[in-house]
Amino acid sequence: MKLIDGKKVSEEIYNDLKIKVEQLKQQGQKVPHLAAVLVGNNPASQTYVNAKVKTCHEVGYGSTLIKLDENITEEDLLKEIYDLNNNPEIDGFIVQLPLPKHINENKVIEAIRPSKDVDGFHPVNLGRMMLNQPAFIPATPMGIMKLLEAAKIETQGKHCVVIGRSHIVGSPMSILMAKNSYPGNCTVTLCHSKTKNIEEFTKQADIIILAIGKPYFLKKEMIKEGVVVIDVGINRVTSTTTKSGFKLAGDADFDDIVSKCSHITPVPGGVGPMTIASLMYNTLLASQKNIYK
Amino acid sequence: MKLIDGKKVSEEIYNDLKIKVEQLKQQGQKVPHLAAVLVGNNPASQTYVNAKVKTCHEVGYGSTLIKLDENITEEDLLKEIYDLNNNPEIDGFIVQLPLPKHINENKVIEAIRPSKDVDGFHPVNLGRMMLNQPAFIPATPMGIMKLLEAAKIETQGKHCVVIGRSHIVGSPMSILMAKNSYPGNCTVTLCHSKTKNIEEFTKQADIIILAIGKPYFLKKEMIKEGVVVIDVGINRVTSTTTKSGFKLAGDADFDDIVSKCSHITPVPGGVGPMTIASLMYNTLLASQKNIYK
Repeated sequence: MKLIDGKKVSEEIYNDLKIKVEQLKQQGQKVPHLAAVLVGNNPASQTYVNAKVKTCHEVGYGSTLIKLDENITEEDLLKEIYDLNNNPEIDGFIVQLPLPKHINENKVIEAIRPSKDVDGFHPVNLGRMMLNQPAFIPATPMGIMKLLEAAKIETQGKHCVVIGRSHIVGSPMSILMAKNSYPGNCTVTLCHSKTKNIEEFTKQADIIILAIGKPYFLKKEMIKEGVVVIDVGINRVTSTTTKSGFKLAGDADFDDIVSKCSHITPVPGGVGPMTIASLMYNTLLASQKNIYK
Repeated sequence: MKLIDGKKVSEEIYNDLKIKVEQLKQQGQKVPHLAAVLVGNNPASQTYVNAKVKTCHEVGYGSTLIKLDENITEEDLLKEIYDLNNNPEIDGFIVQLPLPKHINENKVIEAIRPSKDVDGFHPVNLGRMMLNQPAFIPATPMGIMKLLEAAKIETQGKHCVVIGRSHIVGSPMSILMAKNSYPGNCTVTLCHSKTKNIEEFTKQADIIILAIGKPYFLKKEMIKEGVVVIDVGINRVTSTTTKSGFKLAGDADFDDIVSKCSHITPVPGGVGPMTIASLMYNTLLASQKNIYK
């Protein structure tokens, strides 16, 4: 069994990005600049945004944090988006979700210029991804692709079972794993809450990508020997062994299945660290005009 | 066994559209108007475009056919697109593919205003489809959804195997069949040229959607009793029983499998007739501003 170490892979990405930033500086060129828009005071959103800004500093990117009042009107938020779209200093930006209920999230996301949509949530980027054209890939799916690549997982002709059909993980993963490239070329089965006898699918899988948010869901009776498990779940469960009284658990029952897996991502330290690394990578692509010329 | 009669379903759609057009006329409102852009002299493209224009006449739509020289520059073609985008008379338009090799097809498709993209090929429409937002669905996938609905096929919790990962059929079908709506909520497996032991997947399927362009590919040993088969293939094969010396065959070996199927679409007369019907339906949606307000 081999652990797929997301922390290590993400650090390699950060090191590459740092080198690239140094090169740009030496060539007298602009370094990538990421802006983040945070509306309101949701504590989890604040934590995520702060982590992204901190990472910008670490890799040498410029960063801008725009904090907006929870009661901002949709119109005023859209004005901020237009300003960011037209600000040549900003290479890419994200609007931290969720937004307050009085704001139409879809409308806000569609207002982001696709060439600056480093979260890859704009329909144009998802559509281009589907069409196998240059596109910003959402952070978590891109992070999983990079993990599979780093671990040199053979994918062509393999049966990949994706569990969960969310817009930001399961659904794009099912598209990416079926694409005619590497990682990809899998036969892909997309399972979800309406799937019957899910263990009949997981038992057939060579690769399982779990993204349902149910702690300890995948058990050893549900998998075959030698499977690759990518666990996107980050669930908070109670624990008697930690001071805080809780710990993080994946969608897989790690201890139960680990001996049957050829490769597995731990939680934490697997897919999680890849998310911000992918965002940083997308920001470099945006600043280099690699996706939209 | 029940035949899913695409000709009949498409005629029902045309009748509904005719009634709608009459209502619009009586209310003194504009009737839907579809434009088609045809570049060059590809005989198949001419046939397709002519059939679309003819259907416009039949249902009472306005139509415009724009024939352009094969040697038109990309720039001049893009100018035509901009004119159509800005012409309030035109509700929706299509650019018949393929385009001559000196023209970048993706660039042309992305130049179409999404609200007039009744072919549903613009990345924004594909992305919105993936996000379960209002979108123009490409004609063939939409036609298949309408056939499943008309035949009252139960889909929730069923295993749907889609064979073929093309951008205009297989890939969007795999997304649509997994969506949380009807028809949909299937566990979906997407198979393609790199799939190994494809019969292991087809044997498990409750619903098979075939879109690979291989005549007589699906045989009775590959399916289970009671399966629903939707056959998108339209293959020209030689025949000793027709005057022309050829006939049309689907991707399924119809005569071989028919007795094992609960429902099956014939070729011709199954999915085929639904394609133009879906385009006409999309044109109505465009004229009514049902997708983009």
